[in-house]
Amino acid sequence: MSEEIKEEKISKKEQMKQEVKALLEKLKGQQQLLREAKLPVIVLIEGWAAAGKGSLINELISEIDPRFYNVTSPVIQRENECRYPFLYPYAEKIPENGKIMFYDSGWMEDVVRKYVRHEITKKEYKTRVRSVNEFERQLRDAGYIILKIFLDISKEEQFERLANLQDKANTEWRVTEEDRWQHREYKRFREAYENFMDATGDTVKWHKIDGSKRRKAVRDSLALLTGKIEKALEKGKYNGDPFEEDFPLIPMPKLSEVDLSPALEEEEYKEKLKKLQKRLAELHNIIYRRKIPVVLCYEGWDAAGKGGNIRRVTYPLDPRGFDVMPIASPEPHELNRQYLWRFWTRLPKSGHVCIFDRTWYGRVMVERLEGFCTEKDWKRAYNEINEFERQLTDWGAVVLKFWIHIDSDTQLARFTDRQNTPEKQWKITDEDWRNREKWPQYEEAIDEMLEKTSTKNAPWFIIESNDKKYARIRTLEIIIEALEEAIDHHMEKILND
Amino acid sequence: MSEEIKEEKISKKEQMKQEVKALLEKLKGQQQLLREAKLPVIVLIEGWAAAGKGSLINELISEIDPRFYNVTSPVIQRENECRYPFLYPYAEKIPENGKIMFYDSGWMEDVVRKYVRHEITKKEYKTRVRSVNEFERQLRDAGYIILKIFLDISKEEQFERLANLQDKANTEWRVTEEDRWQHREYKRFREAYENFMDATGDTVKWHKIDGSKRRKAVRDSLALLTGKIEKALEKGKYNGDPFEEDFPLIPMPKLSEVDLSPALEEEEYKEKLKKLQKRLAELHNIIYRRKIPVVLCYEGWDAAGKGGNIRRVTYPLDPRGFDVMPIASPEPHELNRQYLWRFWTRLPKSGHVCIFDRTWYGRVMVERLEGFCTEKDWKRAYNEINEFERQLTDWGAVVLKFWIHIDSDTQLARFTDRQNTPEKQWKITDEDWRNREKWPQYEEAIDEMLEKTSTKNAPWFIIESNDKKYARIRTLEIIIEALEEAIDHHMEKILND
Repeated sequence: MSEEIKEEKISKKEQMKQEVKALLEKLKGQQQLLREAKLPVIVLIEGWAAAGKGSLINELISEIDPRFYNVTSPVIQRENECRYPFLYPYAEKIPENGKIMFYDSGWMEDVVRKYVRHEITKKEYKTRVRSVNEFERQLRDAGYIILKIFLDISKEEQFERLANLQDKANTEWRVTEEDRWQHREYKRFREAYENFMDATGDTVKWHKIDGSKRRKAVRDSLALLTGKIEKALEKGKYNGDPFEEDFPLIPMPKLSEVDLSPALEEEEYKEKLKKLQKRLAELHNIIYRRKIPVVLCYEGWDAAGKGGNIRRVTYPLDPRGFDVMPIASPEPHELNRQYLWRFWTRLPKSGHVCIFDRTWYGRVMVERLEGFCTEKDWKRAYNEINEFERQLTDWGAVVLKFWIHIDSDTQLARFTDRQNTPEKQWKITDEDWRNREKWPQYEEAIDEMLEKTSTKNAPWFIIESNDKKYARIRTLEIIIEALEEAIDHHMEKILND
Repeated sequence: MSEEIKEEKISKKEQMKQEVKALLEKLKGQQQLLREAKLPVIVLIEGWAAAGKGSLINELISEIDPRFYNVTSPVIQRENECRYPFLYPYAEKIPENGKIMFYDSGWMEDVVRKYVRHEITKKEYKTRVRSVNEFERQLRDAGYIILKIFLDISKEEQFERLANLQDKANTEWRVTEEDRWQHREYKRFREAYENFMDATGDTVKWHKIDGSKRRKAVRDSLALLTGKIEKALEKGKYNGDPFEEDFPLIPMPKLSEVDLSPALEEEEYKEKLKKLQKRLAELHNIIYRRKIPVVLCYEGWDAAGKGGNIRRVTYPLDPRGFDVMPIASPEPHELNRQYLWRFWTRLPKSGHVCIFDRTWYGRVMVERLEGFCTEKDWKRAYNEINEFERQLTDWGAVVLKFWIHIDSDTQLARFTDRQNTPEKQWKITDEDWRNREKWPQYEEAIDEMLEKTSTKNAPWFIIESNDKKYARIRTLEIIIEALEEAIDHHMEKILND
């Protein structure tokens, strides 16, 4: 090499170093502005085994205060060992407002690897691609800054790096069977990666970065990250426009049209209750063994009888296999994330029954009416919720939603009774009375919610609960029918596979 | 059977039924009082396989509002698959104030089964028994109502029940290899259960209940539970007295005696930093492979340089193997549980390095000085923390604690600099200035903390940080030395096993 070229190389290297330094300084300054603007950032670093994802992330975080970022490296489980929806480990880790989360590979690797390995079918692959797009869009619409990088290296480069790691006693263990397998299947992986990026690049763009040039990869990634952040800081927190996808909906009656007269005599009630609970216990056994997840959602007017209804459902269930999730007002760390996060993190393991006592529908009821979110937020929620629930049923879950319904007079009678009975007084608060005054506004919101979110895969059921006994029997019947169907369906799937 | 005896039997059965009903009503009334008094309740149901733990719990919860209780059935992992301290799955699930948590078997089964299976040695067994006693005492002292029930059946009864379950297609799966093994080893289990109850019955009493008489078991359990709750409601939330166990302590200097003059020249610093970081990266590799957990605790004066120090430590680490946990003020769901809970739930997996940026020592500093807890609370905390950290080192963790130290003048200079530098202003708040006014009180509290909690297994290091460069090098040296020692020790252990 001539002296001249050598010098030019050195000066280029030096220049790159200066650029990286300046960009790191810029990022260091931005962390604080992100905090003030309450903007959360997701940095997804995907790419080949041995492409240098880990060391890239290490460079990116080198000047950020540890309070403002986190790195997550989710382990990809074998498909048959997954007890949660495939997006669960990623949704669980989304950052709080003002913080940056680096994913050291994430949902792309998960979907692609399982597809290449034939752990999921072509159809399932497509479903997952759709879910990924929905997931990213929902986060973007909630104001998340998302940067997606694919760290690319050639087959030759990968060979060299893997060989290099394997040669040293101390790094040998880092080359896994998985990595060697990917290397052998480089071509199939290349195709699958490209395909996935094509299919998921519309909402949030992919950036392919050459992993063979370390310094340059760092500089380019930093430029992208600081650029994205700068833009977001200028424009302010993004709040996506509502739109409605065509979900197959089940027509629902208006609440005012519902006949609330159905009732049951004590004797008939007791007899039916016993029979249904026995049957439910049997089904719970099967559900548990076949690892079918069940999500039961309870919403309803105050004093409609949700609690008692839930108790009649849980009574016959083996406590090892169910959870009741009471949903109260969100806490600060929950408010600091996309609103579905606190439900993602409460999802049941497959085979478990999870009963939500109030749900994500708070978004389009109390949060809408009390102004806890913007109009855009709750209008967007119908579609987001439909997507979320479809992701649950894609996973194999039975999702049933109950609106426990009473009329205004019945509520008044029950409120008054609570007020006048010492051991029931805790059940009635000033807030209940205030909410009661907003009955008409709530009714409007609920009608809209039932109309827009009763999908075929996750239907609403209006449960007539002026007579609580009737309501309990009705709910049990619906649950039992749905579980029987799910078990049959599950059996068919096994036989056809 | 004569008519007379038959009638007596029926009337006894009827009486029992009435008693259960009355007790359930009582419990129903108490749930609300528990909520008001903010009392948390732990019900631990242990016992033989097929003793009826699940159905007992189902009866107990049948009249409680789902918002006020939860049932957890932790899965006992094989010892070599556990990546957390053995108490972790149980500590993670402790209830919030005002709620009841039912453990469908718990730490007793965990310890006993592993012992009978020879997964842990006699010595480890004893260590775990001690940890269990500490765990229960700490919860009791924090006001938890704890009821421990052992559901007992004879070998013959167990045989009948297992056979009965195994005979039916629908329940066959419920009898596991584990259960059959327990049945074969009934005698050894009996001995181990009795031994465990003897060793853990002093702080919180065990109640042995005959599982062969279902109704009676329910009634007796309900009587115990409602009785305990009643007593606690009368007496108000228990707040245990402080006491100090003899921990082997390392003598610490007073802060005022520390010589803060050590400093490093830029060149020497850079050279050492590079060398130490390289070494740390190598050690991290080994730590990761050998699954040694590492817990690094940072405390220090405001503006002492914690953040920059942490960054120098994390820079060489593979992001897949470390986490930085910034500890802010506790959120409501954290305040509603024993104060160590939010640290239990943030513990690293074995093989990971976890860096706490502020720690559980907040209890004996800010919480003490600002009156966020009672005097008894923070005085009890020294011992509780020593126990907690010993549980971590018993698990195999390296626990190092750094007090990043500066003098008051240096703090003033840094505060002023922050105030006058626009991009640093976010780092300085009014609270920092207020805390600064309390320097003498803090110093006193810190001296006491260092004196009482620098145990041999989890020592404190005062890091002279008037010169940040010196402080960083010093911290790295300490960490490296400790990791090298831990790796040697781990190797020895393997060779001796």
